[in-house]
This record gives sequence, structure tokens and C-alpha cells, in this order.
Amino acid sequence: MSSTADTPRYPLSTRAAALRSSDVRELLKAAQQAHVISLAGGLPAAELFDTEGLRAATQAALAEGAGVAALQYGLTEGQPALRAALRTHEAGRGIDMAGRELLVTTGSQQALDIVARLLLDEGDVVVVQRPSYLAALQTFTLAGARCVGLDEDAEGARVEDLETLALPARPKLVYLVSPFANPSGASLSLRRRQWLLAWAARHQVLVLEDDPYGVLRTEGQELPSLTALAQEVPGARAWCGRTSTLSKAVAPGLRLGWLVLPRPLAEAAARVKQAMDLHTSSFAQEVAARYLESGRLPAHLARVREAYRERRRALCRALTDAFGAALEFDEPEGGMFVWARFTDGTDTRALLPRALDAGMAFVPGDAFYAEGAPRDRLRLSFTTESPERLREGVARLHAAWRAARGG
Amino acid sequence: MSSTADTPRYPLSTRAAALRSSDVRELLKAAQQAHVISLAGGLPAAELFDTEGLRAATQAALAEGAGVAALQYGLTEGQPALRAALRTHEAGRGIDMAGRELLVTTGSQQALDIVARLLLDEGDVVVVQRPSYLAALQTFTLAGARCVGLDEDAEGARVEDLETLALPARPKLVYLVSPFANPSGASLSLRRRQWLLAWAARHQVLVLEDDPYGVLRTEGQELPSLTALAQEVPGARAWCGRTSTLSKAVAPGLRLGWLVLPRPLAEAAARVKQAMDLHTSSFAQEVAARYLESGRLPAHLARVREAYRERRRALCRALTDAFGAALEFDEPEGGMFVWARFTDGTDTRALLPRALDAGMAFVPGDAFYAEGAPRDRLRLSFTTESPERLREGVARLHAAWRAARGG
Repeated sequence: MSSTADTPRYPLSTRAAALRSSDVRELLKAAQQAHVISLAGGLPAAELFDTEGLRAATQAALAEGAGVAALQYGLTEGQPALRAALRTHEAGRGIDMAGRELLVTTGSQQALDIVARLLLDEGDVVVVQRPSYLAALQTFTLAGARCVGLDEDAEGARVEDLETLALPARPKLVYLVSPFANPSGASLSLRRRQWLLAWAARHQVLVLEDDPYGVLRTEGQELPSLTALAQEVPGARAWCGRTSTLSKAVAPGLRLGWLVLPRPLAEAAARVKQAMDLHTSSFAQEVAARYLESGRLPAHLARVREAYRERRRALCRALTDAFGAALEFDEPEGGMFVWARFTDGTDTRALLPRALDAGMAFVPGDAFYAEGAPRDRLRLSFTTESPERLREGVARLHAAWRAARGG
Repeated sequence: MSSTADTPRYPLSTRAAALRSSDVRELLKAAQQAHVISLAGGLPAAELFDTEGLRAATQAALAEGAGVAALQYGLTEGQPALRAALRTHEAGRGIDMAGRELLVTTGSQQALDIVARLLLDEGDVVVVQRPSYLAALQTFTLAGARCVGLDEDAEGARVEDLETLALPARPKLVYLVSPFANPSGASLSLRRRQWLLAWAARHQVLVLEDDPYGVLRTEGQELPSLTALAQEVPGARAWCGRTSTLSKAVAPGLRLGWLVLPRPLAEAAARVKQAMDLHTSSFAQEVAARYLESGRLPAHLARVREAYRERRRALCRALTDAFGAALEFDEPEGGMFVWARFTDGTDTRALLPRALDAGMAFVPGDAFYAEGAPRDRLRLSFTTESPERLREGVARLHAAWRAARGG
């Protein structure tokens, strides 16, 4: 056995060296202990998975023609059956494919990576929401880009700031999670959607909408996606792309997402993806295609939404009852998270170890900012715990908070 | 509907714009017609897939705990069950994990992409074999690297040329497919393996061995992998990495490969992979873990090897009988390809359309060279056709060749 004492120094690429290891991740390892009620995750509820439907879909995928389509190499763009099923799924949300192509990706995370590598050169500017989905920032960092954040308000990201913000350069990409941004839960208003699309068409900048949570809306009016709206805004169709995922609707373990791009970009994107992994698992794709074809998804989603609504309401009511005016938040109309702010100046990063000691976990809000982070925010997930456990989790958070104020 | 006539010009990244679209791919679309006997592919034989074993593995993966491990998000490094099974698999090839980590990847193609992004800055030099596995060149191009080729002889890549080759800069990575390089079938000799590892340790350059075909050896002495040998060459363990895949041993559709790296590099590699796709399909991973645990792989591999040997022999005999001294090749001891050279100056790129007209397909050898390609080579796959069809394919190739000589 060689000694690891004299470990050599490896010459990492500049971009790989720029990837920060998340200290929150380290902190939250404690959240995995059985006695901890974790509201820190971003997972869907495992007990709601349609395992029976997926088992049937798997049998179907491996039965047909001895399962050759599921087991052999496939096309970089994705399995024809799944692409067809996803086009139908998207059509149900008002999205047509004229002048566009749909590519299957290894989760929507890979869709971000593909778009980043397709468009971004060293030092290029990407405009994102602030606070941000951290894994997207990591992806843009790995592509050598600089991220600039748009602040959010009740109408979502303040996209009009694109006109006045002192950007280091003209952006190559605007990336927005909507509806129900992670972590803030904010959704871009219709007015802002239209404004952004007109801006993108005028400046010829690609807008990429990331829509993992739209299927989890339980209240309020569904807004047309940017991609559907782009069909009506002159010139915008060519400058709007979209990614979504089966992770929240079906199961994350399939690791299936998709990317809709204007056709010339989609063709270049397929060349990029081919160099990345040749193609996404045809096995997972054929199973997902059989599942979508089975027609079970709408009823499954209705069950998931109902459970998430009940849990979200339980969480929000418990927070209000426990903290009153000390904690401010808007109850979201869907998604997976509540984003809250302590009005008494509580430092949530300092609160976390106390909360873990009390047997609950959350994500401190500063984790979602590249810089200039406020210290008084926290993100709470309501998807994986029962209403009772959510109430108990809030009680433990409250105990930790009271102890911190007393200490 | 918007018109596609006024398609805008998109500002692709320099690296994405450098990815060539393969004209051979276009040519070979004709090879997919049913009447064409295609020796152009790189696919394993679908009729040999252990569909029954995979069906059982899938049932097991979805039965346990309602399939939560298979359906929920997983760890970036891979599912613990599959990592354990793959470590055992690698131990069977003499590879120990002291000071190393094994990461699951979305095929070995992604393993190449991870290593490329981990190590390579714009303009860095990667040393490869010549002729080369093209998808690897695409990956290194997408990472901004320059590829320099080592010629091959009967002992595989001429690694000693690393001392004398006029390299534009000190290489960051040496990448070799062995045994049974694609397309040449060449395997690096033991002597050269030892020399290369000593060189890597002395110059502190990572050697990445890509070993998809080692499990398909049907004749000759199995050589220790570079990674196993590195355990004995002073200082080499820290400068040797390895990737392999289940695509040839089990099924490509699972899209599962793995990467073995010295631990500090593996930890940085996991951060890179996290930004790329969070993790590889846990569904596919749990199925593969159950399959490897079932103990069916050795018998399955024995069946595959026996079939491939019979097919390879049929192809080689037919080539010799038909072409005699006009076609030169070494029958490989395994793998999936025969790499041959016309001794009469036949231009294989020009021959391809005639062969397609005659109802067979191959890959012209110049497709495997970035530059300075010889025109007289061709690659023939023997895995997916029966001995009878292989003989008929050679007869058609011979007819096309005779017609070309007459024309």
C-alpha cells in the first residue's frame, strides 16, 4: 500500500479549482441522523412514488422485443418514444415544437451544463436570480462564466434591471427558475415575462427557463411558460429555451430531464451532449416512456399535489403560530419550499447548529447567495415530512430560536 | 408559427463551435437500412443481452423498500451498492482501492469528460493514440485541449515517443484505450506499460487507461491493467487513473461506467460531476448492482466471448479467403473490431459508397485521425452479425472492391 502522507499536488483546471465545496453540505450531514426532522432537503416524498406504475412500465420496457431498445445504445437526442411522450406532455402546457427540438438530458442539471457549454466562453456573463439555485451557479462557474444576480420581489426576478444594471459585459444567457424559484418560491409575473421576452428578442440573448416545479402548483392561476409566451412575442421564439424534469413529477432516480431549444441550437447542443455522455440511459428512458404512455401521471400528480398542499399548510400554520411577527414569509402556491426571514435579526447560520442539537434541520439562506448574502433567511422544505412531523420540526426550531435569544 | 427562414445566428462558445459534425456519420445513415449488412457499428450483440437476468434484477431493485433507493435522488459518487459491486469486480482484475476512490459515471464517455474538465485548461496538451477513439477527441476538444497522437505498432502505442516527440507543451494527460484499442485493436505490451508508468511518476502526468474491451478477451495472455501495475511501480499509483464500463459486459442502455482515481482527484472529480448532472441514474445503478450481485455475469460473459470469437474467426477467415494479400490485418485476441489495410492502395473513403450500394457498410479508417490520415484503412465490427452474414458482408465488400478496381 502506498502512503497517502506524501500526496502529490494535482494541477486542477482553473475552472474545476473554482468550484467551491459547500460548507452547508458538511453542516447538514448531521441532518441525516434518524432523530433529526429535516426540512433541509430538496427531495420529493418517496412514499408517494408510483412504484406500482413504474414496475409495470419496467416490465413493459423489458418485454417488448426482448428489451433491445432499453438495453442497446441509443440516439444522443433521446429515445424516440420518450421524446414523443415529452412533446405531448409539453403540448399540454401550451408549448409547440415549431422550429424547436426537444432533447432528453440526464436530469435538468445536465440541460444547464449543455447550454452553458454551448454558449459560454471564459468570462461571459450569465444573469441569474438572486437568491439562486446553487447547482446552477456551479455549472456556470465550471463553464468559466461570471454570474450576475437580479434581485426578486413579489413579481419574481426584477428583469427590468437588465436595462439599468451595471453589467460587466453584455450577457450571453439569462437563466430563471420559474414558477416557484428555489429557494425563494417567487414566480415571474405575466407582465415581466412579456417584458423579458421582448428584451431577449431585441438584444438577441437566450433566455433559459428552468421549470421543475410548475407541475407542483396547488393554488392560484397557472401562468403561461416563457416558452409558450414566446410563441406570441415577435422574434422571441428564437431566443427562448426551456428545461424541465421528471424528477419532481415521477421520480428523481430515473435522472431524466429535457431541453427545448430553437432547432439550430438544439442541433449544436446534441453535438455537445454527445461529447459529454453519448446519450442518457436508454433503459431509464424506455421505462419513463412506458410510464407516460400508461396515462397514470395525471392521477399520480394529483395525489402528490394534494399531499404537498396539506404539508405546506401545516408548516406555514405552525410557523405563524410559533413565531408570529418574528418570522416573515409568503405562503407559496406550489413548489417544495417556504422561504422565510427573521424580523428580529436572527442569524440563521448561527441558529443552524442549535437547531440540529434540538433535532431539526433547515438550510440557512446565505447558502443561496454568491456574495452579499443576508443572514436572516432560511429555506424550509415541506415535501418529505408528515404534517405532524412538520409541526414537531417547527416546535424544535422555535425552541432553538428561543434558546439563541436567551443565550 | 414563426418562420425559420430568418434564423438568427447564435453565438456558440469557441469550444462548442470547434466540435466537428462527422461526415462519416452522415454517410453511414444509409447503413441502417435493413438490407445492409453493417460492420460499421460499435454495438454489442443485442440478442446476447441477459434480458432475463436484468428483468430479475429490475424486479429486485423495485421490490426492496418500495424501490426508494432506485427512485430517489442519490449520491454524486454513485449508489453505495453499485460502488461496492464494482470494487469487487475491479478486485477480480487485481485492482485495489488503497488511496483510490471509485465513482460511478454515465458511461465511460462521461468519465473522460469529467477527467478533461478536472485537469484541462485552454490549450493544454493531451497525448492520445493514433488512430484514436473519436468521441474521446471530441471530449478533449470541448475542454479546450490540443490532442497529440502517439503512433502504434505491434506493442501498442509507442509511449517511448513521449521522450522525443516535439510536444507543444508538457502534457497534462495521457489517454490510452487498452487492451484492444478502438479502432486498431492494439494492446499495450507489458514492457511499455511499465515504461509509461515510470514516466508518469517521474513527470507527474496523469495516465488514464480506458478499458472497455478487456472483458472481451478470448485468446492470449491477459495483461495486468495499468492501474494494477501502478501498484508496483514506485510513485505511479498517484498518477494512474482508470475508466471502464458495463456497456460491453452487461448492456449499453444502462449507460453505466466508472472512474477510478487517486483519492484527492476523485474528490475534486465528484464536485465536477455534481455540476454536470448531480448524479447518474440511481434506477439504472440499483438494477446493475442487483445484477452484479446475482452472480450471473461470469456465465453471461463466457457466452458473449464464445459468440464473438466465432464471429471474429468467421470474419477474418472470409477476409483472408476473399482478399488474400490485398488486405493486411492482425486478428485481435478480443475486443469488437478488425482493423485492416489495403495493400493495393485502395482508398476506403471512396470505396464506402460502392460498398453501401453492394449492401454492406464499414468505417473508413481516415475517420479515426484528426489529421494526416492514411486512406487505405478500414474498421470492421464482428459483434452484431452472424458468421453467415459476416461472410456475405465480406463477399459484398469484395464485389465492391473488384468493381472499384475495374472502374
